[in-house]
Amino acid sequence: MKKRNTHTKDEALVADWQGVKRIFISTEDDASKAALVKYMQQILFGLHEFLKQNVGITEEISLSDLSERFTETLISQNPEKKLASVIRDLIKDIAPNAVNIASPYFIGHMASAIPFFMVHLKTIITALNQNVVKLETSKVVSIVEKQVIAKIHRLIYKKSESFYKEHVQNSKTALGSFTEGGTTANITALWVARNAMLVPTQGCEGVEKEGIQAAYQAYDIERLVILVSRLGHYSLKKAGGLLGIGNQNIIAIDVDADNRIDIDHLLETIKDIKNNHKKTKILAVVGIAGTTETGTVDPLKKLGKICAENRIHFHVDAAWGGPTLMSEKYRHLLGGIELADSVTIDGHKQFYMPMSCGMVYFKNPEIMDAIAYHANYVNRPGSVDLGIKSLAGSREANSLILDSALKIMGTNGYALLIDHGIETARSFASEIERRNNFQLITPPELNILTYRICPTHLKEELSKNDPDQKTRINKRLNEINTTVQRIQREAGCSFVSRTILKPPAMPEHESVVLRCVLMNPMTNMTILKEILDEQEEIYMSCFN
Amino acid sequence: MKKRNTHTKDEALVADWQGVKRIFISTEDDASKAALVKYMQQILFGLHEFLKQNVGITEEISLSDLSERFTETLISQNPEKKLASVIRDLIKDIAPNAVNIASPYFIGHMASAIPFFMVHLKTIITALNQNVVKLETSKVVSIVEKQVIAKIHRLIYKKSESFYKEHVQNSKTALGSFTEGGTTANITALWVARNAMLVPTQGCEGVEKEGIQAAYQAYDIERLVILVSRLGHYSLKKAGGLLGIGNQNIIAIDVDADNRIDIDHLLETIKDIKNNHKKTKILAVVGIAGTTETGTVDPLKKLGKICAENRIHFHVDAAWGGPTLMSEKYRHLLGGIELADSVTIDGHKQFYMPMSCGMVYFKNPEIMDAIAYHANYVNRPGSVDLGIKSLAGSREANSLILDSALKIMGTNGYALLIDHGIETARSFASEIERRNNFQLITPPELNILTYRICPTHLKEELSKNDPDQKTRINKRLNEINTTVQRIQREAGCSFVSRTILKPPAMPEHESVVLRCVLMNPMTNMTILKEILDEQEEIYMSCFN
Repeated sequence: MKKRNTHTKDEALVADWQGVKRIFISTEDDASKAALVKYMQQILFGLHEFLKQNVGITEEISLSDLSERFTETLISQNPEKKLASVIRDLIKDIAPNAVNIASPYFIGHMASAIPFFMVHLKTIITALNQNVVKLETSKVVSIVEKQVIAKIHRLIYKKSESFYKEHVQNSKTALGSFTEGGTTANITALWVARNAMLVPTQGCEGVEKEGIQAAYQAYDIERLVILVSRLGHYSLKKAGGLLGIGNQNIIAIDVDADNRIDIDHLLETIKDIKNNHKKTKILAVVGIAGTTETGTVDPLKKLGKICAENRIHFHVDAAWGGPTLMSEKYRHLLGGIELADSVTIDGHKQFYMPMSCGMVYFKNPEIMDAIAYHANYVNRPGSVDLGIKSLAGSREANSLILDSALKIMGTNGYALLIDHGIETARSFASEIERRNNFQLITPPELNILTYRICPTHLKEELSKNDPDQKTRINKRLNEINTTVQRIQREAGCSFVSRTILKPPAMPEHESVVLRCVLMNPMTNMTILKEILDEQEEIYMSCFN
Repeated sequence: MKKRNTHTKDEALVADWQGVKRIFISTEDDASKAALVKYMQQILFGLHEFLKQNVGITEEISLSDLSERFTETLISQNPEKKLASVIRDLIKDIAPNAVNIASPYFIGHMASAIPFFMVHLKTIITALNQNVVKLETSKVVSIVEKQVIAKIHRLIYKKSESFYKEHVQNSKTALGSFTEGGTTANITALWVARNAMLVPTQGCEGVEKEGIQAAYQAYDIERLVILVSRLGHYSLKKAGGLLGIGNQNIIAIDVDADNRIDIDHLLETIKDIKNNHKKTKILAVVGIAGTTETGTVDPLKKLGKICAENRIHFHVDAAWGGPTLMSEKYRHLLGGIELADSVTIDGHKQFYMPMSCGMVYFKNPEIMDAIAYHANYVNRPGSVDLGIKSLAGSREANSLILDSALKIMGTNGYALLIDHGIETARSFASEIERRNNFQLITPPELNILTYRICPTHLKEELSKNDPDQKTRINKRLNEINTTVQRIQREAGCSFVSRTILKPPAMPEHESVVLRCVLMNPMTNMTILKEILDEQEEIYMSCFN
């Protein structure tokens, strides 16, 4: 064998049976163990220092330069590197070019620092490597999952003690399910709703068995629609496409000046469908508890009442806002969520769990029967196998992480985080309004707000009633904000995101806005002021 | 505040802001850090000893007794326990009642020990906590994911160097996608196939946009069907239900004496549909590379040829068998997989990754456009955002684990594991045939086999041509095997699973069989003989 001398490959590594067997058990040698111990100690017991020192710290490398380094597509036959080298590469080469979402200056997306113990919990889950698809590969872990599902269900629905006694460990009923994320939670909710609507009837054994075409025919339907405000998450459209009802049938309802679903428009739409489109049926109305772009909450009580009156499945997408229920101070913002037939909540958002964990809950403990699947080797009818009523098959036991976190934090601990986010967002909004160069676009209801750079002289121009002028200035502002956001991101110190909204004040104009999500407890007003300062500086130097 | 003294709750823990902020950063005190260091050291550097000592070692507790301990459904307001107590509970209370799937005596399911370094890798992924739905929360990690997808694509399809040069980092094309598991991989493949078949046409903007009803009408279709052997995974039925084509339209094709799809029956079915059911179209034919129950591989070359001739989407479910491609010795068993339009492979099966990781691959780098979704704040058209073409939204970066594992093991390292599994299964089959009390039902093609307890005198009875007698004995054998499997499982030393098959020798009888999956490199013939010995003992003591 020819010896090669390169800095990327350890020399002469050959896979042999003893080596492979050993690699299940322990490190190759003491030196590599020492290296691993050092890294693991840094990660597990100095997580934030580790992230600060190692992640996202490089000079900005252009995407195309970075891409060019990852183009080899042949898998090496023999081991390329020893374990310790691979780990070192991850930390010295990959991490610096990843994104330090744990930084308190990273306020652009629904991701932030997570408590360091979450990494410990994930490590344990991984070591146990249980598969909750079935009891035979998880046992007590499936039982804990049923318990934590009941806990969150109770947080949402507040049913009686006897209700939970009956269902918490009931192998025949299901209060909800863990999912990969909010997208699959929304898909699951609408899948259940579709099947619960198009149940077996005369001449058709139901939509799940016979398909959309046969079920529509049996029910004399031409079209199913789902109604949601135009700020609904794009996963709802994906669900519409996937489920065979068509993503154009996710109907966008206008929002009011506070970015909440326009109830009048909703009622008109329902009425119009009922009166003028006899063969169109409403599969569900979706209320949002924390829209992705503005963090606003739809009037859930009103939506619940409308759905009950019209016998429509009411789904609440609380992927973002759900954990607000743990805050005594702010849970009233989600009032009415208990009327929902189904609710989506994400674990990796405001439960501060690691990527990725979603959940879906149902008011009716029997409704998930509509998606039950069995097989001879697993998921036998009547068993506790959680895979029976689930979009996914094999799944890791993320429920253990949430269960542990709830014990460590208590609802009060989580409430402190929730309250801090909401109140920091309010202070930040005031600061934005105080500054002449900025314009607050959507004030925070929860902990998300949007604004844009808009210096006083342009604000004045916009206030004049000249449509062409307005369009021209808005376009100019879009360029300014797009550029400033990009330059700030590339500078690498801080990150806000951008999106496109139709501001309530000028609904006819698609406006580029800067979007901030305040969830990191280390983010404070000093940092937020620095972020605004930097944006002003970039604006001044580029556009003046 | 009343002081309480219970063994389950730490006393007087109150959530306060300093405490919560600190918990993002470090442990409460030195004593709890010391406890954590100890546990983490055991997990990270003595994984198999840790699992042996802590997991699944209790006396069998009945499920109902266990369930009774997990019925509290109110989340505590204040922290219930300190971090170190929660971790201790996980290890001392949960782990003993979980399943030690890492034991070499656990040969019942597609799960086994994983290399200890997988836990290190998952720990690092969790610490970085990147979200590959978009570049802004993952950067280089999305680029690595594209690279590893190309690597596995190349393992399957062996296209030219220039093909991979063009696509490996191409932001417009996609060679595949990571998924939560095999189920969502199969769903994704069939979703893509459905949309690629029912593309926009005159009078309809395609099935994804307008739904099944409108698309069927435009294409003059009444029914879409998917053909797969009756040993197909239940996720295919789930996909049929979810996608709106109906799970009864997943048509089960007979298998031959070797448990492979019966090609004649398949051809007849295709012919019958074409000739007699003008409004039924075949959406896909699915070939299986490693059936869940018997580990057999369908004749992929023949299937590929049939699909090409009939212009049918050819999907291969290689969730189990895919990694066999890394074995020079046995990759020929999967010959023809390169003809597939789409392929499912699981990471948490024979890539020995932790729960859970699936993948789906496509021959045509543009076909995933059929499921593309965009949003203003992420996944903008033309970006590298991996969430554009994906069933899931937010996702963790499991691709980094696979990429690292491939470097550490090389294909040769994996091949040693694959070869060991196949060869151990063969030796085990011989041992089963040597023993009078057993009957081999399906010999291993890959590393899965089934057999049953069937003592000589019953074998002789079965060989007589008396149908009633056969039925009676088969029923008796079903009781025996169900009982022995259950008692062995409950005894807690070893685990084989059971399923129901129609053995080729007596296809009219549903027979309970014992099923073994040989993938743990620590499982050897000594252990396998012990498992058979125990079954014989249980049989003797219960049925003689």
